[in-house]
Amino acid sequence: MVIAHEQLFQFTKSVLIAAGCPEKEARLAAEVLLSADLRGVDSHGVARLKGYIRLMDKGRVNTKPETKVIHETPSTAVLDGDAGLGLVVGPEAMRLAIDKAKQVGTGWVSVRNSNHFGIAGYHSMLALKDDCIGISMTNASPLVAPTFSKERLLGTNPIAVAIPADKEPPFVLDMATTTAANGKLEVLQRKKAEAPSGWVQDADGNPTVDPLGVKNGGALLPLGGDREHGSHKGYGLSSVVDIFSAVLSGANYGPWVPPFVAFMEPAADPVGKGIGHFFGAMRIDAFRPGGEFKSHMDNWISRFRNAEPVIKGHDVLIPGDPERKLEQKYRTEGVPLLDPVVEDLKELGSRFEVNFPT
Amino acid sequence: MVIAHEQLFQFTKSVLIAAGCPEKEARLAAEVLLSADLRGVDSHGVARLKGYIRLMDKGRVNTKPETKVIHETPSTAVLDGDAGLGLVVGPEAMRLAIDKAKQVGTGWVSVRNSNHFGIAGYHSMLALKDDCIGISMTNASPLVAPTFSKERLLGTNPIAVAIPADKEPPFVLDMATTTAANGKLEVLQRKKAEAPSGWVQDADGNPTVDPLGVKNGGALLPLGGDREHGSHKGYGLSSVVDIFSAVLSGANYGPWVPPFVAFMEPAADPVGKGIGHFFGAMRIDAFRPGGEFKSHMDNWISRFRNAEPVIKGHDVLIPGDPERKLEQKYRTEGVPLLDPVVEDLKELGSRFEVNFPT
Repeated sequence: MVIAHEQLFQFTKSVLIAAGCPEKEARLAAEVLLSADLRGVDSHGVARLKGYIRLMDKGRVNTKPETKVIHETPSTAVLDGDAGLGLVVGPEAMRLAIDKAKQVGTGWVSVRNSNHFGIAGYHSMLALKDDCIGISMTNASPLVAPTFSKERLLGTNPIAVAIPADKEPPFVLDMATTTAANGKLEVLQRKKAEAPSGWVQDADGNPTVDPLGVKNGGALLPLGGDREHGSHKGYGLSSVVDIFSAVLSGANYGPWVPPFVAFMEPAADPVGKGIGHFFGAMRIDAFRPGGEFKSHMDNWISRFRNAEPVIKGHDVLIPGDPERKLEQKYRTEGVPLLDPVVEDLKELGSRFEVNFPT
Repeated sequence: MVIAHEQLFQFTKSVLIAAGCPEKEARLAAEVLLSADLRGVDSHGVARLKGYIRLMDKGRVNTKPETKVIHETPSTAVLDGDAGLGLVVGPEAMRLAIDKAKQVGTGWVSVRNSNHFGIAGYHSMLALKDDCIGISMTNASPLVAPTFSKERLLGTNPIAVAIPADKEPPFVLDMATTTAANGKLEVLQRKKAEAPSGWVQDADGNPTVDPLGVKNGGALLPLGGDREHGSHKGYGLSSVVDIFSAVLSGANYGPWVPPFVAFMEPAADPVGKGIGHFFGAMRIDAFRPGGEFKSHMDNWISRFRNAEPVIKGHDVLIPGDPERKLEQKYRTEGVPLLDPVVEDLKELGSRFEVNFPT
């Protein structure tokens, strides 16, 4: 079905309030989830609402967290998320990074004791209206095997970078450090189609085109796919995300990161608290006058967008273009939801006595 | 031939002095070049000495630069390299980043008006002895086509991240944002072997396995290789390197970056000065006590290194492991040089009246 985004937002917010979140936090969390659906990243949108609620049921998500800065310098901080929703802890940490950037040029905040923060791009884009470059990353449940490893030790560990321009829309890179996101595999599973080579390995560590490979004990592969195509680089980038998010903050890292799914128990021997995120804000005028920077960004963007394409009509895209186009469409026409997602939401609606809009 | 690294260092330094560099700068530049040869990244070592000298002959490299901080805040600076060797400007900018980290927790320096800075890993590793995480990146001559583009608009734009540990050696990621470095293609050209798919496209933008594809008007491909395998992510990362290095600093970006080879003229319509770099230093104790961080890094490293391998005996590597192993070997046994490199060095020796060691 297709549903107006305001209605979906109100429903999501109401469910979160009924589940125990204060109004302000519920509103923010719903906004972050909706921003994923609007940008076409539906794997990180309301489809995950049931997952978050299950973590609350298990006591693994604290609906009323008291976050705390546990260490700081003029340009850095470590924030303890008190086991709150990453959807709420993330924007608070990004705000702190931006405030530090206002003071000393840049701000860098590592977060421990948090949970899944949703779509990485949302957090990085918070910096744009303050004329900052925004950076956000997070570690995640171990589903990815390093190059040469049979074991899954890393998450899809995304990196998002948002850079303001003037007349052009902002540059917004938001990427998992794997060849393909888990959501794309799920699409292939539903279609019973094969996965391209380089996406998945099986339980023995051999390449496979089976989209069920990960579910059957295999692993997602780092960007690059195999050694010959640079998987050691994807593995290296994912590792940097893990270390910045969790070793700097005191969260769990690598195979110790608690799983998002409530039916799997967290490691019995944690090396830190919860999952970790990392945020950065760099004021553009801490480097050169803002107007100058932005007009050169416009020039960068238009030169790349107007590059000669390999196939006529199939133009070169700027990071953020496809998501922005979808958002324009979905804001007007409504957000499409898959049937299983609608079922889940209706179930939540009836449990929490919130009407699902029809 | 194989040559003792001290002898190669002395020779390189003497050539640079004879070419007009002050003793201190010549020593530093020779050290950076040698560090590449010692780490097995021979494409960025003394093999490039002739190229730098040719740029001096053309007046494109200034042997006696007067670098200048043109903008700064407590945690940021922009450094103008006065057209000096990147090999010398790079370490100065990194030093500035470290000094700022000592003051306010982190330091971030964008550099304009520079030249090729050699091996990215060298600069990032400068931060380690001050218990900082070091980050270095640079833009480079346009050889890489963005996803869907026929044109070459980006360089191999490397990212290096060095992270200190305690008993374990440091984590040192040093990667081009392409599937494969240009040096690897040159090896295949000499062997007359085919390149793997996903490394190169031809002049029409079609995939090719011809290792001469780039020389014949084609392009290197961003990490990922093609859209299905995530080349838009490699393109995005390379773009971030270009923007941080050049749009923040006021250097040339994208297709305007001056070519390293002296026989190609820089763009007639530059959008900035020289090429750009970007450096970062983050003090680990700006986030948590240094000892705590380092002992968790040891744990991270040993857990990953001891992961169950796909092939028995073919262990999981930590970024920096292969290069460190080669450095141990080459420091003892001498640095291997290819015949054409020896010829170039002998030619430089006879031009500058410096004896090439035999």
